[in-house]
Amino acid sequence: MKLVLLRHGESEWNRANLFTGWTDVDLSDAGRAEARSAGNLLREDGFDFDICYTSYLKRAIHTLQIVLAQLDREWLPVVKSWKLNERHYGALQGLNKADTARKYGEQQVKIWRRSFDVRPPALEPADERNPARLETYRGADPAELPMCESLKDTIARVVPYFEQTIRPEMERGRRVLVAAHGNSIRALVRYFEKLSESEIMEVNIPTGIPLVYEFDDSFQIVSKRYLGDPALVKAKMAGVAKQGSVR
Amino acid sequence: MKLVLLRHGESEWNRANLFTGWTDVDLSDAGRAEARSAGNLLREDGFDFDICYTSYLKRAIHTLQIVLAQLDREWLPVVKSWKLNERHYGALQGLNKADTARKYGEQQVKIWRRSFDVRPPALEPADERNPARLETYRGADPAELPMCESLKDTIARVVPYFEQTIRPEMERGRRVLVAAHGNSIRALVRYFEKLSESEIMEVNIPTGIPLVYEFDDSFQIVSKRYLGDPALVKAKMAGVAKQGSVR
Repeated sequence: MKLVLLRHGESEWNRANLFTGWTDVDLSDAGRAEARSAGNLLREDGFDFDICYTSYLKRAIHTLQIVLAQLDREWLPVVKSWKLNERHYGALQGLNKADTARKYGEQQVKIWRRSFDVRPPALEPADERNPARLETYRGADPAELPMCESLKDTIARVVPYFEQTIRPEMERGRRVLVAAHGNSIRALVRYFEKLSESEIMEVNIPTGIPLVYEFDDSFQIVSKRYLGDPALVKAKMAGVAKQGSVR
Repeated sequence: MKLVLLRHGESEWNRANLFTGWTDVDLSDAGRAEARSAGNLLREDGFDFDICYTSYLKRAIHTLQIVLAQLDREWLPVVKSWKLNERHYGALQGLNKADTARKYGEQQVKIWRRSFDVRPPALEPADERNPARLETYRGADPAELPMCESLKDTIARVVPYFEQTIRPEMERGRRVLVAAHGNSIRALVRYFEKLSESEIMEVNIPTGIPLVYEFDDSFQIVSKRYLGDPALVKAKMAGVAKQGSVR
């Protein structure tokens, strides 16, 4: 069984280094170029798919659309789920690192960015960013929608979705492509590789680089690789690590 | 129950006046502008949807993507089916009116374009355009895939798909948007309005203009209207009628 994971490229808010989370910002021109490159890497390597998954956020949806156009596979089924959204950054969404440090203190910002299970400040229920108030999430059970998330919380929504929805398709022989976000992909990487809390904190998913896993019948990893130029992959990982989790 | 049907705008082959059928050509810039206008009309009129349907052809898929972007509804579920494809024009695909008249005679071309149940010449099985040889239709039962279609044949694949897949969603209360093609939409119009063979031949679906049907509980039409400027709708219908079925 083969699975390809793809983190979306640069968004308009990545450029400004703002906490994005569930804010529905679009790709930048550079982000669209990253998606085209990812599509070309997949095409050159002869990849094909039967079904695709993405989040409710347009930076991931557009990444997938661009990749499918490059592969001439726009007719493939695409399943969208908010369960694949980025980590919800609560009240930090829309703030940049400097604002956040001024408002909450340097030390606290470090804790939010480097800890596995500490949540950022939650949105107030009356906040217009509260997912339960947005049309986008009207189909979801309001009790399930977060007002903020730790990485642990993100994992707790992404992994059951994978197990219940995506894994059965893979076990039926379907070739799956997932276009998602830094932390929703981290959740899957931790699940596949059985990483500890501290190990997953060290994993930095490069943007716009297809990550290919192969599994045996009992879902043990047979191989893992990034497509494309290893030097570019390394440089992108380092760039992500430097930015921290300001996403 | 409300249903919105939308015919895609100008494609790259419409401009050249070629028989398109299942040829997977993209929208022209003018076609993309028509899709944006359609999205704006729907937004200004306060339309919202729960689920969308389109064909396997990128001119319809892109039309839907552009409309959903205008509505800020890119997260809506989109179901793609080849059952909503344009009429299959068989061996005429890729020919223009002049070529076709030279090859088959003026009189024969008139019959193909104006009759309800006469099929154009079929593709040869070895033809690379044979849908059974295309990756796009690998998920379909090859016995169901056409080598050419009369309008009657198109109706015979579109209407059962509507009855089995789309109508139950409407009956569950879902608001449905269908982005498709001149003849797949004609098939639905004939079904809703119970038109005769000669009546449906007189119906010309304008491109890029949302067509809104309302039905009562027993699926009888309560109202039917095109959104936007009636003069534009009329001019577009006349344009389509003049082009004949060269699509």
